[in-house]
Amino acid sequence: MVMEKINLKNKFSDLLEYWSPRVISEMNDYQIKIVKIKGDFIWHNHENTDELFYVIEGKMNIHFHDSTVVLENGDLFVVPRGVDHMPSAETECHVMLIEPKGTKNTGNRDTDLTAENDIWI
Amino acid sequence: MVMEKINLKNKFSDLLEYWSPRVISEMNDYQIKIVKIKGDFIWHNHENTDELFYVIEGKMNIHFHDSTVVLENGDLFVVPRGVDHMPSAETECHVMLIEPKGTKNTGNRDTDLTAENDIWI
Repeated sequence: MVMEKINLKNKFSDLLEYWSPRVISEMNDYQIKIVKIKGDFIWHNHENTDELFYVIEGKMNIHFHDSTVVLENGDLFVVPRGVDHMPSAETECHVMLIEPKGTKNTGNRDTDLTAENDIWI
Repeated sequence: MVMEKINLKNKFSDLLEYWSPRVISEMNDYQIKIVKIKGDFIWHNHENTDELFYVIEGKMNIHFHDSTVVLENGDLFVVPRGVDHMPSAETECHVMLIEPKGTKNTGNRDTDLTAENDIWI
């Protein structure tokens, strides 16, 4: 039983690579991850799950085919399952993600940006 | 499909009562809730689910029978299922909760503090 609190703001200094989510905690069969992002990711979707984004610091975009959502500090957004999206950030942005254990960062696509899953930090 | 971002910091001004979580979003069969707390809650546990706490502003305690976890801004903590706990806060504290839809705030107990479930804000 992990009975340890985690300070999200401090945790980001341990992240070395952009677009590589790392697990910081679990809730039932869900994982809480943090990720540093910068630049454009790739278009993808998660066929079987919604995906929660919460911006800890910075500013990011979630592009959809017909719109863009801009998220800043303290903004929360849930991308619905099956919906194509492309995250991006002009400058470094710190994000918390929550999604079921086993969710792949590139969803329905395999690319150089597909990160190894279930790595804790 | 809710394609709306939510700013957590701003949302708290809409909360009127302490200890009454309100739903701000959903992810699969989970709900994202916000709650203002102050004073002592009651001892309870959630038999079938973990419960995620994330402090947006202020300071709170989660008391266990043999220890206390103190959470401040940006601290995240997951209370494991079945574990008795008693949240408290000396001064008003703003918290985000994530748990399965239908999770009752007082868990295994029914008291005056049992809040109506599934009320959105």
